Amino acid sequence: MSNLKDYFNTLGKAARSASRVMAKASTAAKNQALLNIAQAIRENAAQLTAANELDMARARANQLEPALLDRLSLSAKAIETMAQGLEQIAQLPDPIGEISNMRIRPSGIQIGQMRVPLGVIGIIYEARPNVTADAAGLCIKSGNAAILRGGSEAIECNRALALLVGQGLAAAGLPETAVQVIDTTDRAVVGAMVTSPEYVDVIVPRGGKGLIERISAEARVPVIKHLDGICHVYIDSDADLEKAIRIADNAKTHRYGTCNTMETLLVASAVAAAVLPPLADIYTKKGVELRGCEATRRILKQAIEATEEDWKTEYLAPVLSIRIVADVDAAIEHINHYSSQHTDSIVTENYSRAMQFIREVDSSSVMINASTRFADGFEYGLGAEIGISTDKFHARGPVGLDGLTSLKYVVFGHGEIRQ
Amino acid sequence: MSNLKDYFNTLGKAARSASRVMAKASTAAKNQALLNIAQAIRENAAQLTAANELDMARARANQLEPALLDRLSLSAKAIETMAQGLEQIAQLPDPIGEISNMRIRPSGIQIGQMRVPLGVIGIIYEARPNVTADAAGLCIKSGNAAILRGGSEAIECNRALALLVGQGLAAAGLPETAVQVIDTTDRAVVGAMVTSPEYVDVIVPRGGKGLIERISAEARVPVIKHLDGICHVYIDSDADLEKAIRIADNAKTHRYGTCNTMETLLVASAVAAAVLPPLADIYTKKGVELRGCEATRRILKQAIEATEEDWKTEYLAPVLSIRIVADVDAAIEHINHYSSQHTDSIVTENYSRAMQFIREVDSSSVMINASTRFADGFEYGLGAEIGISTDKFHARGPVGLDGLTSLKYVVFGHGEIRQ
Repeated sequence: MSNLKDYFNTLGKAARSASRVMAKASTAAKNQALLNIAQAIRENAAQLTAANELDMARARANQLEPALLDRLSLSAKAIETMAQGLEQIAQLPDPIGEISNMRIRPSGIQIGQMRVPLGVIGIIYEARPNVTADAAGLCIKSGNAAILRGGSEAIECNRALALLVGQGLAAAGLPETAVQVIDTTDRAVVGAMVTSPEYVDVIVPRGGKGLIERISAEARVPVIKHLDGICHVYIDSDADLEKAIRIADNAKTHRYGTCNTMETLLVASAVAAAVLPPLADIYTKKGVELRGCEATRRILKQAIEATEEDWKTEYLAPVLSIRIVADVDAAIEHINHYSSQHTDSIVTENYSRAMQFIREVDSSSVMINASTRFADGFEYGLGAEIGISTDKFHARGPVGLDGLTSLKYVVFGHGEIRQ
Repeated sequence: MSNLKDYFNTLGKAARSASRVMAKASTAAKNQALLNIAQAIRENAAQLTAANELDMARARANQLEPALLDRLSLSAKAIETMAQGLEQIAQLPDPIGEISNMRIRPSGIQIGQMRVPLGVIGIIYEARPNVTADAAGLCIKSGNAAILRGGSEAIECNRALALLVGQGLAAAGLPETAVQVIDTTDRAVVGAMVTSPEYVDVIVPRGGKGLIERISAEARVPVIKHLDGICHVYIDSDADLEKAIRIADNAKTHRYGTCNTMETLLVASAVAAAVLPPLADIYTKKGVELRGCEATRRILKQAIEATEEDWKTEYLAPVLSIRIVADVDAAIEHINHYSSQHTDSIVTENYSRAMQFIREVDSSSVMINASTRFADGFEYGLGAEIGISTDKFHARGPVGLDGLTSLKYVVFGHGEIRQ
């Protein structure tokens, strides 16, 4: 453990030092590094595949679950996607150095805010090699240094990627240590990482709720948290029913395992009898299990009883809970009580209720007449995302390059002094 | 302690509940509450003075230091200033509900970011009754609920103010519990406050470094930290020496005890012999003790030796450390090593070095040709400040109303679904 702490301190010092160089690196150098890494990934596809095969063989021997094996595997297509992802990040505007809100004060000073990197980003994630490339790319472009700790099952592949990332940085004249991959499978290193504010400015945990809660409980460093996604669609009494059905279908069935998938459908009692039967037909055909409140079950005989527990559950599966509510006030009350503050949507043609909903629902994304599935960095135009924050502090919602930055005040004076 | 936890839980629940009402309160109601409280403070000046007299009498009996007694005392002028402060906050634009960055995405959805309150703000401060009014005002205007914990020496006065604040809120139709003052002098309540994320969204500690470090170490809730202010002025070789002398004088001698006061002066070696003697004359006349590096002491015979410790010290007193450096690179290196990342200023007529300085100095305020004393919410046009953050996460620099808010994504759709 003492050796592990020494190991992490060495990484931390190198990261802190690299972060100062990255903060002032030119846009051209950062983009060149991204393109170098993309090219190296393509040229070394065979080595990456070989490294991944070692990981896969060990994982199979350890009888890893099929879903985890699937995430761990790195296909030729996944390798190409990694390279393209880096090229896309190179094309995004450089957020660093941008100055906003410039204004002249009565004293004569001109003041604005300059976007600057946070410093060193620690990213803790599961055994998904593609996250290594994405996270490295986002940290490089935002002028930060990164310490990456991927799931131990992917260690060979992450080592191979780390080598390519370091070479790509060096060839662009940037410090190799701007991105470091933790080269030990000892989990205790996570403890060192989340309790070292002298080396790490923020932790981004990507993974299950358990991982994130454990890290948050232990951390002495700020954490950009992404907890569960218990998302709602509320069909208002003034909804366009055709839109309502389309949105409620898409929000549930487009993908079942994503955090922005609807888990609970709320329906205004005035339209429940009209909208629920056709929707239930669609869900039933697609194999979605329906769980309803008493009023719902009077309309939908196929629905089983929804318990209190259902309103609190992120199914991540073809299961939907349905509750009939009196009106928009009751819907907002339900959402602010049970939602995980991720994404919630109202379907209505009523202007006042739409405005009330977006103002009063306390979630990171609040929508009118759109599917919750849009809550995503690419769909929002952020270009890429390092996660979706369900926190209110610092970054909220999909976190792109801007979420890895901070604003400092800059003052342009002409010799002014305080009177 | 168990009773104390129960006491805090009662406060916390009331604050959480009030925060939901405050989040949707109209601008008119919030402003009315601020004006009600201002009026009540004026009308009840005699009761406030009487309460303050009780505090002062006890504090004198307990032999409180004169500086602390001075802060604790509430003069007729201070009471009027509190009332005016609240009226000024009422005049500021309401940040809540403001939508920015609206754009249409290729999918058809229109997306923007809406400014929303953080929820419940916990403020921990020393025995300064005026902070109670300021903090209450900023939290009300920003649509938050507040739990205030002032220094125990001011308990009588804070109780009297709490009553007026509650009445002012109620008369505006807002919950009395939107601002609660902790009515116990037991310090253990601070422990409950900083470890209850279910009731408190952010802690703002105002006070000495010791208080802030203690709270940060213990907190399970985000903390907007304001640590020390070790601020620098760097006089570049291309400085306008008249501006340099004016700024270096003002930054040190305008007020000695403030966090944005210069503590270390850096001077480019090329101009040291020209600029230091006239500056030293000014400082010496004002009674400022000078401590210099070896090169400084060759020019200024009156300077005593500056040690390593001096570069790390926030004097808050008429003492200045002076170091001669080779150039802007050396100045930036010194600052990024020793500065507390509060406020640092360059004096130069050289465009490239000015740009380099504001880009590379990693502090919450970075200035060109202006006195560090400008780092202040009022001077920056924020209208009021709840503190100055030396953190990078969330808010950096003077924290006004915006620092007590967050941005949520809002999506305006027309029935769009994810393809």
